[in-house]
Amino acid sequence: MKSIILAGGSGSRLWPLSRDMYPKQLLALDKSESLLQQTFSRLNTIMSASDIITITNVKHYQDIKLQLNKIDSGNIVIAEPQGKNTAPAIACSLEYLRQNSNNDDVVLIAPSDHLIKDIEAFNKSVKEAEILANEGYIVTFGIKPLSPETGFGYIKTDKKLSVGYRVEQFVEKPNYEKANKYSKEEDYYWNSGIFMGKVSVFLDEFKKYVPDIYSNLNLLNFSNSLKIDFGVYEVMPTISVDYAVMEKSDKIALVELQSDWRDLGSWQSLYSVKAKDENGNVTSGKVLTNNVKNSFIYSQKEVVAVSDLEDVVIVETEDAIMACKMDKSQNVKKLYENLKSIQSGTTRLHKTVFRPWGYYTCMNEGDGYLTKTICVLPQQKLSVQSHNYRSEHWVVLEGEALVIKGDKEYHLNPGESIDIPVKEKHSLQNPYDKELKIIEVQQGDYISEEDIIRYQDVYGRV
Amino acid sequence: MKSIILAGGSGSRLWPLSRDMYPKQLLALDKSESLLQQTFSRLNTIMSASDIITITNVKHYQDIKLQLNKIDSGNIVIAEPQGKNTAPAIACSLEYLRQNSNNDDVVLIAPSDHLIKDIEAFNKSVKEAEILANEGYIVTFGIKPLSPETGFGYIKTDKKLSVGYRVEQFVEKPNYEKANKYSKEEDYYWNSGIFMGKVSVFLDEFKKYVPDIYSNLNLLNFSNSLKIDFGVYEVMPTISVDYAVMEKSDKIALVELQSDWRDLGSWQSLYSVKAKDENGNVTSGKVLTNNVKNSFIYSQKEVVAVSDLEDVVIVETEDAIMACKMDKSQNVKKLYENLKSIQSGTTRLHKTVFRPWGYYTCMNEGDGYLTKTICVLPQQKLSVQSHNYRSEHWVVLEGEALVIKGDKEYHLNPGESIDIPVKEKHSLQNPYDKELKIIEVQQGDYISEEDIIRYQDVYGRV
Repeated sequence: MKSIILAGGSGSRLWPLSRDMYPKQLLALDKSESLLQQTFSRLNTIMSASDIITITNVKHYQDIKLQLNKIDSGNIVIAEPQGKNTAPAIACSLEYLRQNSNNDDVVLIAPSDHLIKDIEAFNKSVKEAEILANEGYIVTFGIKPLSPETGFGYIKTDKKLSVGYRVEQFVEKPNYEKANKYSKEEDYYWNSGIFMGKVSVFLDEFKKYVPDIYSNLNLLNFSNSLKIDFGVYEVMPTISVDYAVMEKSDKIALVELQSDWRDLGSWQSLYSVKAKDENGNVTSGKVLTNNVKNSFIYSQKEVVAVSDLEDVVIVETEDAIMACKMDKSQNVKKLYENLKSIQSGTTRLHKTVFRPWGYYTCMNEGDGYLTKTICVLPQQKLSVQSHNYRSEHWVVLEGEALVIKGDKEYHLNPGESIDIPVKEKHSLQNPYDKELKIIEVQQGDYISEEDIIRYQDVYGRV
Repeated sequence: MKSIILAGGSGSRLWPLSRDMYPKQLLALDKSESLLQQTFSRLNTIMSASDIITITNVKHYQDIKLQLNKIDSGNIVIAEPQGKNTAPAIACSLEYLRQNSNNDDVVLIAPSDHLIKDIEAFNKSVKEAEILANEGYIVTFGIKPLSPETGFGYIKTDKKLSVGYRVEQFVEKPNYEKANKYSKEEDYYWNSGIFMGKVSVFLDEFKKYVPDIYSNLNLLNFSNSLKIDFGVYEVMPTISVDYAVMEKSDKIALVELQSDWRDLGSWQSLYSVKAKDENGNVTSGKVLTNNVKNSFIYSQKEVVAVSDLEDVVIVETEDAIMACKMDKSQNVKKLYENLKSIQSGTTRLHKTVFRPWGYYTCMNEGDGYLTKTICVLPQQKLSVQSHNYRSEHWVVLEGEALVIKGDKEYHLNPGESIDIPVKEKHSLQNPYDKELKIIEVQQGDYISEEDIIRYQDVYGRV
């Protein structure tokens, strides 16, 4: 069996914790592993890392790779040049499998941002679905509705099969009245967004129903690079797999997903899966409450003190604070869109940015300068690089630094500093067993992450 | 006429904007001048700066001086060694006047944290009160109740005088039922906390009703220093002037304060005096709202985005975020007390601290180091100082620095840096017309603002 993980989501609905450059699937929302890592590890219990294809937007490629490499460096990540909803991403991933493995393989297609804890039950449903997939069905995983949810699509089943059911119809997100009706009827299920089928069967359906996508697949060449060519992708329509294939195909079956399942698509849904204190609150970080009930208070860095409020979500990050009513938390997307339209950097990046070698936090920005604290993890090094428009000044705070500057090496201890002039080749390295922390002061007329020329990089970013 | 400004308030009720070290009276809440500066300027319209005595806790002395010097350096500030409520502060200030001016002078005693905009009306009431004060009365300024406020004390008047009334009784903060009754009756007024009387009359009443305070006044010697001796103050009881004198004296009269008047004692009261937008919101700073009503959203530094909330207060400062229900904003004091009990630094200082020469912001703190950005205003200089336990490393970001290090002078431009070893005498100076901004990295086993030895200081802090 193979699988495709869809990891192209944007960062709007859990803003300010999620960002354009750091979407939901990269977040460790309920434990130390991110949703992506949990998804990968779950599939990794029934297949090897090299059988799991993860597809994502090229802008998230580095971070996705970084996270998956921590589990198994044998992972395969395909990069889309732009987001085009699920159908093109799935089609291209299927084409990769067609070129690189057996066309009759069964493939499990799963989003990267669902929370599933009962892996045993999940795997049992996967085994059931596999029977139908081998019979030529495209199998959807349905969830028995727990409530009249209006945020999900519904699937109406038809006659029973050896396992599961034939599918009669897909129903798009209904209004409350309909959702209420569906959730009480036996033959309706929530659409989990998880599918299974043979590579060949999927591709046949793409050929039949979305020739605009299918006809371009033969232009893909994965032998040199897993980054999809912009020109090939550009001409494909932006469309969901539900709309493009699932709602049209007559080969659709359904098995009930017997594990727990949560789409953490809003602060409210995240709140719902967390353990509450005696006042019904979920708190994280430096939070102080007084007469607060049924609320989600999250502090990333600073003190958040709340008094006399109920049913609210308050989230503090280093550069943005969000507060909303719990049952309206889906409107965070509107705040995000508004902030994006006024070009607030808070929609794009976190103040702290993770890199393969560690992380940095922007502290001060002013006329012609930018200061960062940089943490280099033990045994890691930044690329050998130079900048055309800025000088850098480094002061070691903690640990020990090995600095390459031009042809020379310098060893710096806490309190010691060094200047890196414009255009000088340099590298900051930490060949020791302790974290290295430095302050970096960048100065110049043009200060941008783009102003970097890489000469050598252990993480393959040259 | 003389006046005494009571500027000893703590910083709990408008936390996190107010802090223990930066209380309400120092804040510019409605315009560019702080409440203290507004109070001083208001009195300054009818008397000279040297007739206005400001008394405050010694820990606020520097900041009070800094603010008043901006208006008139002829101001007089007396420092209490500790807070002991209003009676000892007033008695000591009266003793200063007894020693330094005419015992028959009339003195106006006013809190430093009230908002009064109509200065003409205020001065008219002051003139009326002066008539009664010269007749030997202690005159309180009463406010015609606008609502059944339970947060103020009430004053019941008796028979009419030439101007104003005799006072029958002081009533402490009533419950709602009583407040409702009082606010509808002709002869009840709110107690504004502003008083007037002859120095000699006040002192006679202290002698009669609070001998514990009065008997120690002759130990005060203001000829060398305006800082009250700890030993003299220590033995005085902690008591309010209302309780100690006003409620007991039979010389009390009342004139109606005809100006506007607000005690900005809570976020709600501050909200009430601000201009609202079409949704009834008061916003300040980088604030974005979506379906928010009748709320006060204040951002000092970062983006604050709020959705689908009503009647809330949300305040963001550099190191603390506070959210509460508007009509429960008096409970912020509880949050403050709780934070204080767990020794949260956010109750004490702001991350940005103002000094006579400019300000600094703490950025990062870690094992053995602390980093600050420091801004030195044009033509200002820090004291010549040394540190026993820490070295400092300075990097110029903007402007130009004159650094005294040992016997030598150094001129540093943006991007240039210098090391100040432990125990080395040094001074950071900005003799230019542009702001100087630097990054300071402090390093050492013991890092504290206490570790400073001052040799020369243009602000008299040696």
